[in-house]
Amino acid sequence: MASSAKYLTGDGTAIKEFLDKFDTFLFDCDGVLWSGDHVFDGVPETLLLLRSKGKRIVFVTNNSTKTRQDYVEKLAGMGIEAGADDVFGSSYSAAVYIARILQLPPGKDKVFVIGEAGVERELAAEGVPFLGGTDPAFRRDITPADFAGLADGSLLDPAVGAVLCGLDFHVNYLKLAHGLHYLRRGARFLATNTDSTLPMHRDLFLGAGSCSAPLVGAVGEQPLSLGKPSQAMMDAVEGKFRLDRARTCMVGDRLNTDIKFGVDGKLGGTLHVLTGVNSKADWEAENAVAVPSFYADKLSDLRDCE
Amino acid sequence: MASSAKYLTGDGTAIKEFLDKFDTFLFDCDGVLWSGDHVFDGVPETLLLLRSKGKRIVFVTNNSTKTRQDYVEKLAGMGIEAGADDVFGSSYSAAVYIARILQLPPGKDKVFVIGEAGVERELAAEGVPFLGGTDPAFRRDITPADFAGLADGSLLDPAVGAVLCGLDFHVNYLKLAHGLHYLRRGARFLATNTDSTLPMHRDLFLGAGSCSAPLVGAVGEQPLSLGKPSQAMMDAVEGKFRLDRARTCMVGDRLNTDIKFGVDGKLGGTLHVLTGVNSKADWEAENAVAVPSFYADKLSDLRDCE
Repeated sequence: MASSAKYLTGDGTAIKEFLDKFDTFLFDCDGVLWSGDHVFDGVPETLLLLRSKGKRIVFVTNNSTKTRQDYVEKLAGMGIEAGADDVFGSSYSAAVYIARILQLPPGKDKVFVIGEAGVERELAAEGVPFLGGTDPAFRRDITPADFAGLADGSLLDPAVGAVLCGLDFHVNYLKLAHGLHYLRRGARFLATNTDSTLPMHRDLFLGAGSCSAPLVGAVGEQPLSLGKPSQAMMDAVEGKFRLDRARTCMVGDRLNTDIKFGVDGKLGGTLHVLTGVNSKADWEAENAVAVPSFYADKLSDLRDCE
Repeated sequence: MASSAKYLTGDGTAIKEFLDKFDTFLFDCDGVLWSGDHVFDGVPETLLLLRSKGKRIVFVTNNSTKTRQDYVEKLAGMGIEAGADDVFGSSYSAAVYIARILQLPPGKDKVFVIGEAGVERELAAEGVPFLGGTDPAFRRDITPADFAGLADGSLLDPAVGAVLCGLDFHVNYLKLAHGLHYLRRGARFLATNTDSTLPMHRDLFLGAGSCSAPLVGAVGEQPLSLGKPSQAMMDAVEGKFRLDRARTCMVGDRLNTDIKFGVDGKLGGTLHVLTGVNSKADWEAENAVAVPSFYADKLSDLRDCE
């Protein structure tokens, strides 16, 4: 695929034209604003500059371990002011989808969660009953009695109608086996997101996709992902923020989530910053999953607009 | 793909012709001889009958959690007599491959194990140094210090040259993160086998493939599998037992491991028994991964040969 991205770094005129094209910027966080707990230099100032120009900023993250409120606190700790309504996370996206669109039938409306507290709290806020997750009863080794009880169904809650996989730092065989047996009995297979990796400490760790991958292999089916690049998430973002897609730009570091999310969503533009997972070579490659319309070495390069 | 398998159940003449074609029978275990801890009716008697006709029996299993000696004991418990030399397991196959074929260079010859004691004991028997596995130091939650130490490499053993994934009932994020970071630093990616499921209690649980799948997604590379249907395993079986492939039959319940193993290995025949994972419809399907040359409802149907 031929590169068609415009390079912004150091080109004040191009940056000014870029900013003038958009009213709303959707920001990925990990790899764009920060890596792990390390905020990139100049990022808070860049966001202030955008807001001073009247731009709306929305933080769109696939990190399912945190709630929107957790993100507000994390942003504040990085020197970035935001409210919960400025954040759209994949756990929130999944909870909204389950509660308002999937609408599981009564008696089959519980969700078995593989994930952290962020998923649980967003489900609870939408009134979706769930089990699994951070429950200590699932944080242990599997026993022979578990194998027997999963096989004969006696350990399974008949009200479970969906399995939702997010990133779970406490993933184990017991939780995965429960997930498998609910799926084998007809539960819907959902994921907050399916990122295979997670940027942390300027390195990569295992992402939410690592928690659904064992089940994908075992049931031979992909989960419906409610995070980037799923257009279910884009539709929800558009509905919530009433945004004009033509005047909206997605900013991210990953081609297969962020940039694809913006391209598939027919946004006015996408900006790829080179501070995260993917490099320029990735979208210049023959079979690139998505090509951004703009790119910059780092987000704070946008400050060179005057 | 058109079905070309001959049905043996209830056809004494066909069974006699079938038995006359082969000197050696390679047996898968789970789903053929037993399910979990439940031996199928008539199986011990069927194996005695084969031996009484001078047939050599080899148990070829992908179950990496057990050593060959563990299998001898399991077989004995099921009423089936065997010696360790009659068993060829994927952990043994992996250990032999690493020690004798891969031959990691000195100073880079340790193996990081995701797996149970079966893998460790077979590696130890072949003199391969390893870490991870059942070490209690890895059976815990990941901490912030672990993330930092994995990212900067201070927690990694520089002598690790391979990551070996088998079935690990104690799989967790900490072990997977170690595996990922060794792979990102150039370690070879190996698996005892990559079965996505494991038959137990007449149901399916997660197989060894569930322990490598998270890493496959994160590094974008498949492991070299040393279990069925890998022909590395077939070559090792042929070498050890000096068998005549044309006079050897593979007996199994899974198309993508057992039957493919025999077909790819150009054995004289394959027998599919319908007591495990796959059904007749699976190899009658258009894109069947492998088609057996014979099939029977259950192994003990072979007793109707006279």
